[in-house]
Amino acid sequence: MKPHVTERQSVKNTPTLREVGEHGVIQEIIAAAPSSLNGDDAAVLLPMAPNSRTVATTDMLVEGRHFRLDWSTPYQVGMKAITQNYADIEAMGARPIGALMALGAPLDTPVSVVREIAEGIAKRTGDYNTELVGGDVTQAEKITVSVTAIGALGGDREPLALSAARAGQKVVAHGKIGWSAAGWALLERFGTNLPDSSLQPLVDFHCSPVIDPGRGVIARATGATAMTDNSDGLVHDLTTIAKRSAVKINIFTNAVAPDELLVRAGELLDHDPWDWVLAGGEDHTLLGTTMKDAPSGFRVIGEVTRRNGDGVLTIDGQPARYSTGWESFPSDSALNSVCSLEEDR
Amino acid sequence: MKPHVTERQSVKNTPTLREVGEHGVIQEIIAAAPSSLNGDDAAVLLPMAPNSRTVATTDMLVEGRHFRLDWSTPYQVGMKAITQNYADIEAMGARPIGALMALGAPLDTPVSVVREIAEGIAKRTGDYNTELVGGDVTQAEKITVSVTAIGALGGDREPLALSAARAGQKVVAHGKIGWSAAGWALLERFGTNLPDSSLQPLVDFHCSPVIDPGRGVIARATGATAMTDNSDGLVHDLTTIAKRSAVKINIFTNAVAPDELLVRAGELLDHDPWDWVLAGGEDHTLLGTTMKDAPSGFRVIGEVTRRNGDGVLTIDGQPARYSTGWESFPSDSALNSVCSLEEDR
Repeated sequence: MKPHVTERQSVKNTPTLREVGEHGVIQEIIAAAPSSLNGDDAAVLLPMAPNSRTVATTDMLVEGRHFRLDWSTPYQVGMKAITQNYADIEAMGARPIGALMALGAPLDTPVSVVREIAEGIAKRTGDYNTELVGGDVTQAEKITVSVTAIGALGGDREPLALSAARAGQKVVAHGKIGWSAAGWALLERFGTNLPDSSLQPLVDFHCSPVIDPGRGVIARATGATAMTDNSDGLVHDLTTIAKRSAVKINIFTNAVAPDELLVRAGELLDHDPWDWVLAGGEDHTLLGTTMKDAPSGFRVIGEVTRRNGDGVLTIDGQPARYSTGWESFPSDSALNSVCSLEEDR
Repeated sequence: MKPHVTERQSVKNTPTLREVGEHGVIQEIIAAAPSSLNGDDAAVLLPMAPNSRTVATTDMLVEGRHFRLDWSTPYQVGMKAITQNYADIEAMGARPIGALMALGAPLDTPVSVVREIAEGIAKRTGDYNTELVGGDVTQAEKITVSVTAIGALGGDREPLALSAARAGQKVVAHGKIGWSAAGWALLERFGTNLPDSSLQPLVDFHCSPVIDPGRGVIARATGATAMTDNSDGLVHDLTTIAKRSAVKINIFTNAVAPDELLVRAGELLDHDPWDWVLAGGEDHTLLGTTMKDAPSGFRVIGEVTRRNGDGVLTIDGQPARYSTGWESFPSDSALNSVCSLEEDR
């Protein structure tokens, strides 16, 4: 079941941004995602605990490149924009405390599209007990959703850095791995007319990946030292940790093997589901390292095996096959080594 | 003298974003605007003083709508993106502590354009002793610079709110008023071939407005209560304060009268320079109210005359003529009342 299934075609009779003007657009956003912190030149966020530090990250989603409105509802786009930004905050071990959205859109965009994006943002910021605290709207050729997330890092413990994996640690994961890429492959082949409705969760997860709020904070509180989110692909993102930490990381095949849905989607598409697991990305799964037991909500998927390493990532001891994930500007050289899954995105 | 006068035409032989790829683009940005806080999933900002609150704002600049690269250098675009975001932080009485940039650009954009935008950002963030602490890059149809500014509001004194003007206060201003609009009008008529080089400062100010760092913090520390920045036009922005504070504000003609450069530009263009002063906007001048003397760097331009007012703004006691400023999505009704200066933007 897709929430807010309104699509562009069906909302042609609602007013456009041209008709309601900037003030009207802003009112729609504020009505859908209200915050008493919004409405002045800048948002003053709620006071944080003593010693807490501010954490910030930003991601821009562009229509046609990061989402298609014939595949995703505007509501899902809004949710995804928050999920992926908040995942970056959580990957530092910090707690999201608010988000801002700069929105660009063509004048003929139905205002309902903007409202539904804001509703998706309100839903997902609300899941973290936060709000959309500020933003900007402007005319653009494509719908462009640029979200910035602000977080609070409590206490004086170190943030979960890419460079802080240590030999002897477990590699732990919270969230699906490979689902977003499989969902994209299904949409690319079938559009929204899926021949096997049992695969709908993969499509939904691509349109709006979900991770449980608070897992990064829990992981930092219980001994994790390094963390990232699976945005560019499992091999790519864990290789980044391995390189930045100068360690060797080994992934256990059994722990990340394609699940039943991925296998079924692979059969339907005649595609190796390991591609999605290893190179897919965009799941925003939290990937961390810890000397302790896996934090609640996390499972063990590998081990950090060597310090003073060369950043090598292996799978059951064999060199990982996929080194290139998502590229915002695919260069000629990058395209040659990128897997088929990514080439057309 | 325009800094970094490299323009698109002259850099066709430098590599494009397609050629250098995402990693190359990010490296260019980090080289031009380095920060040791950058490079992880999110930036952890430096610890703030006890009791300080985090302040955040965002603005999106789109090529062809907010800037033209045949008018502005990429360096100026980068500077302007920081100035206008930091002005919003200052307008709360807060101190900017860092910025993030999400950048969208076409694949055929010369990488030097991105580097120069980042250099402009580094210059202007450096003016405030801050850094570009994070960002995102992606493919887009138009160059899109979405900057988020983070600030710190020290102590427990209230931020400078739009709703905090009080009867009996002085209205004070720091910065030029009308220069940006006059510069735009000159560019619109003459392009960059200005017939009178003495008017170049107006053009430069449009391409990259400048306010002195720290004025908002000083104003808050010395008794100001309300503040905004002149982004949508003097009448529009002061009317916002008047309405939100339920007061009446009166502006002194003598204090905002067009200066010599504005008068000369008006003669050259056969245009009333008062238009630029009253409805121009984009100067990012700080406009505040205070019961005390004007803070250093500020001058008195008016008075708050009535509490429980209806948000009326007058000029020497006469109702202000211009009520509509910059519109991101000019609606039909707004277009009818907008001044000629704004219609084509």
